[in-house]
Amino acid sequence: MFINIGIVGATGYAGEELIGILLKHPNVRISYLCAKIDKPKVISDIFPKFKGKIDLVCYQPDIKYTAGGESDLVFLALPHTVSMKFTPRLLSAGKRVIDLSADYRLKDASIYTQFYKTKHADRAHLKNAIYGLPELYRQDIKKARLIANPGCYPTCAILALAPLVATNSVDLNSIIIDAKSGVTGAGRKASIESFFSEINEDFKAYKVNAHQHMPEINQELSGLAGKKIKVVFVPHLLPLNRGILETIYVKKTQNTKRKTQNTVSLYKKFYKKEPFVRIRGEGDLPQLKDVTGTNFCDIGIVESKEGIIIVTTIDNLLKGASGQAVQNMNIMYGFPEYTALL
Amino acid sequence: MFINIGIVGATGYAGEELIGILLKHPNVRISYLCAKIDKPKVISDIFPKFKGKIDLVCYQPDIKYTAGGESDLVFLALPHTVSMKFTPRLLSAGKRVIDLSADYRLKDASIYTQFYKTKHADRAHLKNAIYGLPELYRQDIKKARLIANPGCYPTCAILALAPLVATNSVDLNSIIIDAKSGVTGAGRKASIESFFSEINEDFKAYKVNAHQHMPEINQELSGLAGKKIKVVFVPHLLPLNRGILETIYVKKTQNTKRKTQNTVSLYKKFYKKEPFVRIRGEGDLPQLKDVTGTNFCDIGIVESKEGIIIVTTIDNLLKGASGQAVQNMNIMYGFPEYTALL
Amino acid sequence: MFINIGIVGATGYAGEELIGILLKHPNVRISYLCAKIDKPKVISDIFPKFKGKIDLVCYQPDIKYTAGGESDLVFLALPHTVSMKFTPRLLSAGKRVIDLSADYRLKDASIYTQFYKTKHADRAHLKNAIYGLPELYRQDIKKARLIANPGCYPTCAILALAPLVATNSVDLNSIIIDAKSGVTGAGRKASIESFFSEINEDFKAYKVNAHQHMPEINQELSGLAGKKIKVVFVPHLLPLNRGILETIYVKKTQNTKRKTQNTVSLYKKFYKKEPFVRIRGEGDLPQLKDVTGTNFCDIGIVESKEGIIIVTTIDNLLKGASGQAVQNMNIMYGFPEYTALL
Amino acid sequence: MFINIGIVGATGYAGEELIGILLKHPNVRISYLCAKIDKPKVISDIFPKFKGKIDLVCYQPDIKYTAGGESDLVFLALPHTVSMKFTPRLLSAGKRVIDLSADYRLKDASIYTQFYKTKHADRAHLKNAIYGLPELYRQDIKKARLIANPGCYPTCAILALAPLVATNSVDLNSIIIDAKSGVTGAGRKASIESFFSEINEDFKAYKVNAHQHMPEINQELSGLAGKKIKVVFVPHLLPLNRGILETIYVKKTQNTKRKTQNTVSLYKKFYKKEPFVRIRGEGDLPQLKDVTGTNFCDIGIVESKEGIIIVTTIDNLLKGASGQAVQNMNIMYGFPEYTALL
Repeated sequence: MFINIGIVGATGYAGEELIGILLKHPNVRISYLCAKIDKPKVISDIFPKFKGKIDLVCYQPDIKYTAGGESDLVFLALPHTVSMKFTPRLLSAGKRVIDLSADYRLKDASIYTQFYKTKHADRAHLKNAIYGLPELYRQDIKKARLIANPGCYPTCAILALAPLVATNSVDLNSIIIDAKSGVTGAGRKASIESFFSEINEDFKAYKVNAHQHMPEINQELSGLAGKKIKVVFVPHLLPLNRGILETIYVKKTQNTKRKTQNTVSLYKKFYKKEPFVRIRGEGDLPQLKDVTGTNFCDIGIVESKEGIIIVTTIDNLLKGASGQAVQNMNIMYGFPEYTALL
Repeated sequence: MFINIGIVGATGYAGEELIGILLKHPNVRISYLCAKIDKPKVISDIFPKFKGKIDLVCYQPDIKYTAGGESDLVFLALPHTVSMKFTPRLLSAGKRVIDLSADYRLKDASIYTQFYKTKHADRAHLKNAIYGLPELYRQDIKKARLIANPGCYPTCAILALAPLVATNSVDLNSIIIDAKSGVTGAGRKASIESFFSEINEDFKAYKVNAHQHMPEINQELSGLAGKKIKVVFVPHLLPLNRGILETIYVKKTQNTKRKTQNTVSLYKKFYKKEPFVRIRGEGDLPQLKDVTGTNFCDIGIVESKEGIIIVTTIDNLLKGASGQAVQNMNIMYGFPEYTALL
Repeated sequence: MFINIGIVGATGYAGEELIGILLKHPNVRISYLCAKIDKPKVISDIFPKFKGKIDLVCYQPDIKYTAGGESDLVFLALPHTVSMKFTPRLLSAGKRVIDLSADYRLKDASIYTQFYKTKHADRAHLKNAIYGLPELYRQDIKKARLIANPGCYPTCAILALAPLVATNSVDLNSIIIDAKSGVTGAGRKASIESFFSEINEDFKAYKVNAHQHMPEINQELSGLAGKKIKVVFVPHLLPLNRGILETIYVKKTQNTKRKTQNTVSLYKKFYKKEPFVRIRGEGDLPQLKDVTGTNFCDIGIVESKEGIIIVTTIDNLLKGASGQAVQNMNIMYGFPEYTALL
Repeated sequence: MFINIGIVGATGYAGEELIGILLKHPNVRISYLCAKIDKPKVISDIFPKFKGKIDLVCYQPDIKYTAGGESDLVFLALPHTVSMKFTPRLLSAGKRVIDLSADYRLKDASIYTQFYKTKHADRAHLKNAIYGLPELYRQDIKKARLIANPGCYPTCAILALAPLVATNSVDLNSIIIDAKSGVTGAGRKASIESFFSEINEDFKAYKVNAHQHMPEINQELSGLAGKKIKVVFVPHLLPLNRGILETIYVKKTQNTKRKTQNTVSLYKKFYKKEPFVRIRGEGDLPQLKDVTGTNFCDIGIVESKEGIIIVTTIDNLLKGASGQAVQNMNIMYGFPEYTALL
C-alpha cells in the first residue's frame, strides 16, 4: 500500500521533522508541501540537509485551495488557531487530517478560548476529533478522519501518570509536574526572547500554572480517573535544542501498601505491548539523551514511604510531535506501527 | 586594615573564583596559594586570564606545613573529607579558617558519615564551627574562628524557605525542592560522565532524595522551625557552566489565610536589611542570568489557593561558594559586607 | 573629578555592558538612559540583574531632544546608520561623544556607502572623528570630541597585525584572517536566523570577503603600512555568547630572517606599555576563556620557516565594544586607563 | 546476503554510532561486541537508548581470543596504537577488518612513529591496507581485507581539495586549512581538559601544524598531485558535540584563468557519481547542521581573482568515522552503497 502525503507548515520544526521521517517511510510519498514563505521555493533550498533527497517545491498556503490535491493524508504543522481554518476544507475534500496544533485537543471549547485567547472556529469537527495518543486511543485512531496530535508536555505527563491514575493508586490531588523542555518546543519563530544569547547559559520557569498544555493534561488524566484532576504544572526552558524531561511528584494515599517493585511492575504491565514506551527498573532513571532522536518515551520510578517520584523523558519533536504523528498515521493505514520510527 | 590570605585548593573552580574576587578587594593580599598539582607553578600559568594581575607561585599542599605562613585567614577550597585534615593545624597556628567543603556543616557526625562515607576526623572543631550563612548567623560569623561555608543547593533552598519555615506559615511536611544546577557545581575533576559531549544537549536528575546536600537543608530548616523537617530533594544537572535555580513547592496549612501579597511582604520584611537577597514582586520570577556573575540570591513567589511555588536562583560559584565565603570574610573582619562583591 | 554619562541605546548588548562597567566606576554617574522601547521603563525592570544597583528610568529616544541634558559624555550604542543622526546635535550641545556604531570609523564615505548601503549623513564630523583604538591613537583620543569606537573584529585583527605591518616585516599581500565570533557580536535583535536552536550545535562561515568590518581593517592596516593593504577576511559564527578568536596567516618575505623569538620580542616591545594587550611566549596560544569577561587582548604566535600564524582573542563586548569605549573615556578624562576595567 | 559483524571498542563514540547505524542495516547482524569495561554488560545497559533494540552482551577485549568468533567483518573502533595489536590475529582468522584508528593510514611507518610516538607493530599488513576513502579508492575497497578508515579532518580536507589538486589547478604550496571540530572528534575519554565547563563557552586552536591528521592529508594530496604537498593545518575545538567545518584557502597560479563557475563545475563533474558528496552553487556555503546526522560531505566555493576559498563540512562521527566505515562495508560486500546511511 502506498499513500500520498501533504504537509501544511513544512518549514517549522515539526514540518521539517515530518519530512525527515517520511523520507525514510517505504509506504508514503510526500506529494505536497506548503508554508508561510515569501515565494515558492524548493524545500531543499530551505533545508539544504535534504539536498539530493527531495526536490519538491514548497508553496505558500492557500486556504481557498483544497490543500494537497492528490494527498490522501494531510499533516497540519501549524500554529495554534491556524489549523482550524484549514481543517474543515480538507475533511470536506475527503482527506484524512493529523493536526499537530492544539486546535482539536481540548473537548471543552470554553477552555480552549481561555488558554488560546480566541473562540473555537470549528466546533463541528472538534467533537469528532480523536486525541492521538496511541497508548490510550489506538482503536479510535485506526478509523479516525481527524487526529488531534497531543502536545509535547502532555504526551510526556500523561504517559508518566496513566498507570497510577487509571488504577487510582495515589492521591490524585497531589500531582506536581516540574517540566523542562528544550527550545524547539516553542516552534521556529523570531523574537528577542528566543535569541541565542538570551537562552544560552540561562534557565528559567515560565507560565507557572498557566501554560496552555495544563488543561490538556487535566482533561486526559480526569478522563482516566473518572473524576476531575487538577495538576500543578511548572514548565521550564532548557538551553538545548530538543527533549523534554518531567519530574513528577505524587503522594500515596494512606491505604496504599504497594512497594516500589510493584509500581514498576504496574507500569511494565500497563505498557507491555507498547512499542514506544520503555519502563526502567526501580531507581533507574532515564535522561534526555536516552530518547533524543527517537520516538520512545522512557519512564523511571523512585518510590519512598511518602510518595512516588517519576522521571520521564521524550524527544519533543518526535514522540512529542512529528514522530507521534507518523505513529498515528501508521495506525490509521495499518502499517507496522514502528515504520520509519526506529 | 589589611589582611593576608591563603587559599588551599587554588586550582578548583571555587579557588579560581576566590582569586578573581580577592584581586578586586582593597583590604586583602593573597599571600599563599597551594593545590594538588604536579609541581609548583605560577598561578597565571595555570589560569592565563590572571596574567598581569597576579604572579604568585601555587605550591603543592603540605599537610605538615602550617599552610600560608603569614596568612591571617585561610580559605579551604578542597574536596569533602580533605578539609578536615588541614583545619586543626591551621587553627592551632592561629589562623582563621573558612572551609568551603562540607566537612564542618553537619552538626551530627553520624549523618556526615552516612552521606560522605567516612568517619569525621575532627569532631573537636566541628562543634564550634559556624554555619556561614550570613542571613541567619551574621552575629556568630563576626567572631568565628572556623566557618563552614554552606553548600550551593542549601544556600539557595534555605534562603528560599527561611521566611516561611521560621514563621511556621506552611505545611512543613510538604516541602518539595526540584533543583537544577550548572556543571561547575560538581567541581573540576576528570570523569567520563562530565565529558563535554556527555552533558551537552542532555539533562538528567541524579541522586534523587540521596544527595549529600539534603541533610544540610534538613538541619537548617529544622533549626529554624524548631522541629524536624524532612524535604523531598531532587537535583538535576543543567548543560551550562554556572547557576542554580530551584523550584520549590509547599502546601499551605488549612488555617493559612495569607494572600500572595502577604507572602511577598513577609519575604521582603524578613530580608529587608540583606545586601544580597532580592525579593521580586508577586508572580515575577527570577531566572538564572539575573544572578550569574553576582553574589545575589533572587527569590520569586507564585501563590495559589492550594500552595506556594517559590523560584529562587543563585550563582553556585558566588553566593553558592566563593562569593559567600568572601561575604563571610568581610563580616569577620568588619569590612563593608559587599566589598569586592558588587 | 566626576562626570555625568548618557547612554543612548541602553538596552542592546553594548548598552547593557556599559551600564555594568560604569556602575563600578568611581568617577562617573549614569545620568541619562534611552533606548528604542515601547514606553519608559526603570532599567532594572528591563535587566533584573541591575536591581538594587541602579533605578534610573530608560526613556525612548528623542532625536529632537538634546540627549542627556546634563551629560558630559554620551555613549551611542546604536545600530549603524542611526548614530550619525544623533551625533551632530550632541556635539552642538557641547557633549563629548563615543560612538560604538560604525558610522564614524571609515574615513572614505564612499566605502561606507558601499558596505552600509546608505549615504553618510554627517561628513562634517566624520573627518574629525578619532578612531578609538588606544594602542594606536592614545594622544588623539585625549582631546577628542567624537570617538569612533572600533569594531570588534577590527580591534582583534589590527592589534594582532600592527607590529608586523608597522615594521613591514611580512608579505603584506598575504594576510588571511579566519575569524570566529560569539553571537552577541551581531547585537540583540529578533530574527529566525538567530533563534537559539538555529545556532546551537551549528557553526558557519558568513559574509566571506564581504563583511563590513573588512574595510575598517584594511583602512587601519594600510595606514600603518603606508601603502594599500587588502586582507582576506572570513568571519564565522560560534555557538556561544561572547568572545572573538582570530587565526591569522601571514607569509614571510624572502629576506625575512627573523626567528620566532624575535617576532614575540617584536610584539612584546611594541605593546610594552599597554595595559590591555598581553603577548604570550612562543607557541603558547590564548583561548577564548582567557579573555572573556575582561578588557584584554591576548596574542600568541607560532612561527615557521614559511610564515607566521597569529592567534588572538578578545571579549567582543568588552575590548571589542563597551570595555574599549570606557577605556577611551578614561583616556579622554585623565582617569587611570584601567579604571572599572580590571 | 547477510553478514555477521563484530565491533571491538563498542563503547566509544565511533562504536556507539556503528551500533546505531548497523541496527538499521537489513543485511547485517551484530554478533559480537567488546570494549574496555569493568565487566561484561548488556550493551543497552551501557547505552539505554538501545533498549528494546539490541540485547547483546558487550565483553571485555581479549587479544588472545580471535575476536568475534562468527563475525565475517570486524570493525575496530579503538584508540590509535591499539588496533595494530588486534588486526593480525583477525586477518589470520579470515575476518575482513575495517580499522577506524590511524594505525594503517600512513604508508610511511617513520611518519607514524613521529606523530603517534610509537613504532609501528604490524608493518606486514600496513603495506596492503587500503585507505578507505570511497571517492578515491572504491575499486580497491571492493576486494580489501583490511581497510584503514580515514581520519575525520582528512576526509573533510581531501574531499574538499581533491578536484583542485588532482587537476593541478592551483598553487599547491599555498594550501591553508583552518579546521574546526566538535568535541566527539577527540573520543570518549576522561580528562580535565574535556570537562564540560572547560569547553563550553570556550574556543581554541590546538596542535598548530602538529596534529597527527596533517601527515595523512599531506600523503593523500601528494599522491593525487604526483608531487610532495605540505599543507598548513590549524585545528580548533568547537563547543558542540558533532561536526567538522573546514575553511580552506588556496592561491591561484598565475596562469589560472578559470572563473568561479568553472571551479564549481570542476567539482560537480569530479563528484558526479558520488552518493555522499554534494557541491553547492557558487558562493553558497554549507554549514554544520546541513550534514550533522548524515553521511554527506557538503562543499561550497567562493572564488576571487587572487584565490579560492572552500568551505566544507561533515559529521565527524559519520562521514568522518562510522558512517564512512559502513559505506566501506557496503562497497566490500556489494550492498547498495547508501544502505543504512540515508
